[in-house]
Amino acid sequence: MEHNLTIYNTLTRKKELFKPLKEPFAGMYVCGPTVYGDPHLGHARPAITFDLVFRYLKHLGYKVRYVRNITDVGHLEQDLDEGEDKIAKKAMLEQVEPMEVVQYYTDRYHHFMEMLNVLQPSIEPRASGHIIEQIEMIQKILDAGFAYIVNGSVYFDVEKYNQTHQYGKLSGRKLEDLISNTRQLEGQEEKRNPADFALWKKAQPEHIMRWPSPWSNGFPGWHLECSAMGTRYLGEQFDIHGGGMDLLFPHHECEIAQSRIANGKDAVQYWLHNNMITINGQKMGKSLGNAVNLEQFFNGNHPLLEQAYSPMTIRFFMLQAHYRSTLDFSNEALQAAEKGLRKLMSAWETLKSLQLAVRRRHRAQSTGHRAQS
Amino acid sequence: MEHNLTIYNTLTRKKELFKPLKEPFAGMYVCGPTVYGDPHLGHARPAITFDLVFRYLKHLGYKVRYVRNITDVGHLEQDLDEGEDKIAKKAMLEQVEPMEVVQYYTDRYHHFMEMLNVLQPSIEPRASGHIIEQIEMIQKILDAGFAYIVNGSVYFDVEKYNQTHQYGKLSGRKLEDLISNTRQLEGQEEKRNPADFALWKKAQPEHIMRWPSPWSNGFPGWHLECSAMGTRYLGEQFDIHGGGMDLLFPHHECEIAQSRIANGKDAVQYWLHNNMITINGQKMGKSLGNAVNLEQFFNGNHPLLEQAYSPMTIRFFMLQAHYRSTLDFSNEALQAAEKGLRKLMSAWETLKSLQLAVRRRHRAQSTGHRAQS
Repeated sequence: MEHNLTIYNTLTRKKELFKPLKEPFAGMYVCGPTVYGDPHLGHARPAITFDLVFRYLKHLGYKVRYVRNITDVGHLEQDLDEGEDKIAKKAMLEQVEPMEVVQYYTDRYHHFMEMLNVLQPSIEPRASGHIIEQIEMIQKILDAGFAYIVNGSVYFDVEKYNQTHQYGKLSGRKLEDLISNTRQLEGQEEKRNPADFALWKKAQPEHIMRWPSPWSNGFPGWHLECSAMGTRYLGEQFDIHGGGMDLLFPHHECEIAQSRIANGKDAVQYWLHNNMITINGQKMGKSLGNAVNLEQFFNGNHPLLEQAYSPMTIRFFMLQAHYRSTLDFSNEALQAAEKGLRKLMSAWETLKSLQLAVRRRHRAQSTGHRAQS
Repeated sequence: MEHNLTIYNTLTRKKELFKPLKEPFAGMYVCGPTVYGDPHLGHARPAITFDLVFRYLKHLGYKVRYVRNITDVGHLEQDLDEGEDKIAKKAMLEQVEPMEVVQYYTDRYHHFMEMLNVLQPSIEPRASGHIIEQIEMIQKILDAGFAYIVNGSVYFDVEKYNQTHQYGKLSGRKLEDLISNTRQLEGQEEKRNPADFALWKKAQPEHIMRWPSPWSNGFPGWHLECSAMGTRYLGEQFDIHGGGMDLLFPHHECEIAQSRIANGKDAVQYWLHNNMITINGQKMGKSLGNAVNLEQFFNGNHPLLEQAYSPMTIRFFMLQAHYRSTLDFSNEALQAAEKGLRKLMSAWETLKSLQLAVRRRHRAQSTGHRAQS
């Protein structure tokens, strides 16, 4: 493929020419949503960012396989290795089966992504649908000696990994600093080292999302699912792995370690990360009362919003900024984007009508020529 | 719940009062599409039929859990136990990963169902996402002595089952007739009896959709998936099982046998089946050249169609007929439905404006009264 597309690789901290492993194919994995709540800007930004990458790679002529997962199990509160599963907790609150929560919010996610003109990925695997692949990957890591079993749970041995590999190379963190900065949390006493992370967790009796495994009835660790599904659908090595910058550590760092040990090689060529979103200069958060979801943007129904903003205004606003910069949402900025989009679209309409007029004149002239000859 | 909803139960061949196992909950499982081709009328009819059941049960006040699966593995050509997997074959033709075929046609199915105003079910499980549940169910059937292993494949022993249970009770068929009418097909020599059916198939080397199991690297039988997913999300016994009449035998008959042996009880209270669709009096079929898909109905782009028909015309036409009757699609019938729907909608508009006028008059009168008093 002839092109000079360069992309910033988080791993090397450099812009690099994009050269896929196997022309004309390009493989891309992007971390999708954990489906336990309504989609918000934090979901929209990676979806829109990598939608553009997907479209552009196809435009260049690549046959792109774009995999974006649905996390429907194993993602515990505060992204930790202990505590409640985010989906199971929501299901308990609403007194439904966890898969009803998953279905409802997956449908909502699809609905809003369609409104934002985000194309569906080529494959959208669910974590709960790939338990076998995850068990197989854990077994490989155990066989290689980089994981250990405690009370039916399996943990990745980060310290051992770090002796021969560089844990932290993506995020630029050092294991020593990580260890000294980690709070010793309750329920973590199973780990040899606070930096270790769960590959498989034994389920507590009340936990209903559980599967049999060689170690216990339980569920896979959150980090593992992406490695397993990436390998399953893109192979042991593939081109691009994307996601939000908040996933850089520990999620993607753990993915690198797992794949390296399970498959004996680094899985990803190019790591791409979109930056975060702020609202009126503040980090978004439920406790801050500024967590505006997409539906509220589209209908204007939130105290922070002066009006409704169309999905295309949101998309346009996001794409005006560089994906690696933070992006601040405010009424002023959105209203400016709305105006900008309107101007762009009217310029586009003018261009189209000019083109039509020119074509008509050409036709008229050539008919005239023919009449004269 | 106070109501007198009676439904025709295919199993008892009687209309019965609907009484769920556990008020106020109602559980319903409906066989969804095998996603290897564009959605057509054969997909729309069960979707619309059971959408109405879903809506009506909710209207009566039930908390309904409606499960409709996606078949993405194990459905072999001609619904047999030998031959190519429908999805793997399509993937080979299009030179993509089978899950890309699954994703594409699942998205298409959702798109067209939304156009037909069919609500999403509460849970939409995929067969490939429930391999573990299927393996566990097979193990139970083996342990009970009603299945046998040959060359890494596992078959259900229909003859043994029929000695103590009545195989054929749903479809009204007799095992002896079935056996004498079954052609001895190539590749079936593993079965003890031609009426036996596969629970697990060892994968041929070229087969890429495969998972490890105690018996072989392979894939589950088509009939098994619905029993496993039904049990997983609705329990060992639930209220309604629906589907097209073409699934009555052998698919649903096999489901009954599997669940009976694995769980020791009959899974389903009420079996509901919608009847088939014909086009100009003929059975639909690719070889007959009359397989019109939904997109073609909506854009009119098919030699058999005189015009395009809106999704609501299709829905209205289907719901005008009784779901247990065959329904013939012809341009005349659809044009009549289009006219009928227009009349109904304009009557509805008239009623609404009358209601508004009456309300206005009441308001005017009561204001008058107040002015007088």
